[in-house]
Amino acid sequence: MIADEKTYRNIRFERDGAIAYVTMNRPEKRNALSLEHMQEIIACLKSIEQDRDISAVILRGEGPAFCAGHDLSEMLDGTPDFYRHLFDVCTQMMEKIQSIPQPVIAEVHATATAAGCQLVATCDLAVAAEEARFATPGVKIGLFCSTPMVAVSRAVSRKKAMEMLLTGEFISAKEAKEEGLVNRVVPAHELESATRELAEKIAASSQLVTGIGKQAFYRQLEMPQHQAYEYAKEVMSFNATFADAQEGMCAFLEKRRPEWKNR
Amino acid sequence: MIADEKTYRNIRFERDGAIAYVTMNRPEKRNALSLEHMQEIIACLKSIEQDRDISAVILRGEGPAFCAGHDLSEMLDGTPDFYRHLFDVCTQMMEKIQSIPQPVIAEVHATATAAGCQLVATCDLAVAAEEARFATPGVKIGLFCSTPMVAVSRAVSRKKAMEMLLTGEFISAKEAKEEGLVNRVVPAHELESATRELAEKIAASSQLVTGIGKQAFYRQLEMPQHQAYEYAKEVMSFNATFADAQEGMCAFLEKRRPEWKNR
Amino acid sequence: MIADEKTYRNIRFERDGAIAYVTMNRPEKRNALSLEHMQEIIACLKSIEQDRDISAVILRGEGPAFCAGHDLSEMLDGTPDFYRHLFDVCTQMMEKIQSIPQPVIAEVHATATAAGCQLVATCDLAVAAEEARFATPGVKIGLFCSTPMVAVSRAVSRKKAMEMLLTGEFISAKEAKEEGLVNRVVPAHELESATRELAEKIAASSQLVTGIGKQAFYRQLEMPQHQAYEYAKEVMSFNATFADAQEGMCAFLEKRRPEWKNR
Repeated sequence: MIADEKTYRNIRFERDGAIAYVTMNRPEKRNALSLEHMQEIIACLKSIEQDRDISAVILRGEGPAFCAGHDLSEMLDGTPDFYRHLFDVCTQMMEKIQSIPQPVIAEVHATATAAGCQLVATCDLAVAAEEARFATPGVKIGLFCSTPMVAVSRAVSRKKAMEMLLTGEFISAKEAKEEGLVNRVVPAHELESATRELAEKIAASSQLVTGIGKQAFYRQLEMPQHQAYEYAKEVMSFNATFADAQEGMCAFLEKRRPEWKNR
Repeated sequence: MIADEKTYRNIRFERDGAIAYVTMNRPEKRNALSLEHMQEIIACLKSIEQDRDISAVILRGEGPAFCAGHDLSEMLDGTPDFYRHLFDVCTQMMEKIQSIPQPVIAEVHATATAAGCQLVATCDLAVAAEEARFATPGVKIGLFCSTPMVAVSRAVSRKKAMEMLLTGEFISAKEAKEEGLVNRVVPAHELESATRELAEKIAASSQLVTGIGKQAFYRQLEMPQHQAYEYAKEVMSFNATFADAQEGMCAFLEKRRPEWKNR
Repeated sequence: MIADEKTYRNIRFERDGAIAYVTMNRPEKRNALSLEHMQEIIACLKSIEQDRDISAVILRGEGPAFCAGHDLSEMLDGTPDFYRHLFDVCTQMMEKIQSIPQPVIAEVHATATAAGCQLVATCDLAVAAEEARFATPGVKIGLFCSTPMVAVSRAVSRKKAMEMLLTGEFISAKEAKEEGLVNRVVPAHELESATRELAEKIAASSQLVTGIGKQAFYRQLEMPQHQAYEYAKEVMSFNATFADAQEGMCAFLEKRRPEWKNR
């Protein structure tokens, strides 16, 4: 199955070889995550998930912000059921990013706030421009960033997560790097190429192997260590029998490049 | 209910607007945590917990040390039951700091050792003077810092926690910042104002919203991620229906300052 | 019981006072972890575990690499049962490092890759030369570093672990320090003395107390915080009744050096 290039209303989907680009495209709304916007991201990730020709995904935003979080204009005077539905869909989107086999890299050119900051924390990897800034400012509008907290508190230290959540203040790209929220910080004009380079490194490996590893990563992280080892041993023993593993080990011992069956 | 300003023997309790100060006040004992000292801190936190006019708490120490840990003069030749009681009360104090709705900020002007270091690790936030130093030196007196370890190993990296516990050596304020044990390091003469400024930022938000967020933070941290999302979605959907959230979103969209009902 | 100095085929075991050295000694194979190599390390750790005269262990490697991970020449065309057995033995070795009472320090003079990087992540402490480098490059040979991931993802931040696993690229000793993978980085000519100094600091404490603390460390880390406190309180109350604790507290109050019974 091949991810379709049908037109979305809130995002753009493009592919370039083994790399897919998902671009949040509501620049006038600072890419705020309306219900429809999130549903389109989910639909797009679902089609990517099925596409064995895609090895890595880059998530980025059009316009002055990476993503401003939820769309507040949609949220006034909601019923409890509406809010529950909204955060359900948002959580589905976050969990989908981590559950698809392809690594997802956030390319953060500007501010990422609230659920936008959560997107960065959730992606497998993140590259930021020096100008990018990150905040969970919900307290400032009386709505604590409780769902963003789940992702942010698993990405950075406890004290830093608390500080971001309680003060709502921005942290710089440099601080985000020091804290582990992003992997790399580069000048704005190098952002696209640096992210692309990272995606290409990933795409050079067997897509099957990368996918199994990514999915095992999140699973084992939540287990006690002994159980994590029991699980990881099974994954690795299974992986070792793959044609791609046999070819990879052979190529290494013969000092040549491997040729993947499942690229 | 209003936290009473009754006189304690081991601590001072003061309030200044929405901010409460709890000052360990046994300078000649380097603020060692005798049983009575800890019981007074617990009693004081319990009264703060009930006081809706307090939005943030600053914990600090009088004299040459922030806190030297347990009071060894009380601990010689104890019975097993005495030790159990002592560590019970100590743990109650630590857990109370995290369970009250108001954020607690450690203002660390000097050395924080053993249970004193645990206090810093336990507080929601910490600001340190450049001279402050941190250690878990129990191994040096044959009493491994096992209860401090619970808090310290959840605040800093595994290898650094092990190093502190196995060597008993001090780390500097700068290292403490790099490791995530404290949020900010400032020159000694700015410590009070920097801590105050952080408390005031917190106090600018709705006390009700901050409290719900702080309490949810620790709960979700211990859950597997999917369960954490299930929980956080409920918290956030509930929070969204608050008058303070509706006012906050409205104010944001109308580009004005929000007016909190639950200050 | 005293750890025997019998000759191993793949490792060297030496002792110098209270400090034991375990040296991986297959320099021509970059200390690759063949089955026999791992079994010897396990046997050696088991004899150390029983030896009350050993207070700390230094794990190091002979030749151009610290450790290159599994021995691929042994792994081609294996049956599923063989792979399962191999990763079982490897996991036993890793778990043994953490379960023996004596702290184990990795002395990393050069590259540590795949299960070699896992060894560093697994040791209680690690000191690295400036030239040392670390990677989990399994993806490059079609065999995702799934078991190394268990240790590495518990030592460094989530985003950095993902980056190492997905790209297979090296990180420098400096980055390893910033990320918490190693405790110290020193010039190559100081590596041996810096590691030794750290081991001696540990050996200055009561061996009994250090062992109880180390073992409690890993156990409490995997518990929810309240349960961790319940457990740590018991450990600490028990520890407080030890002759070494009473002697240590006494010596501290009398401002003299303690004399350990269980050194």
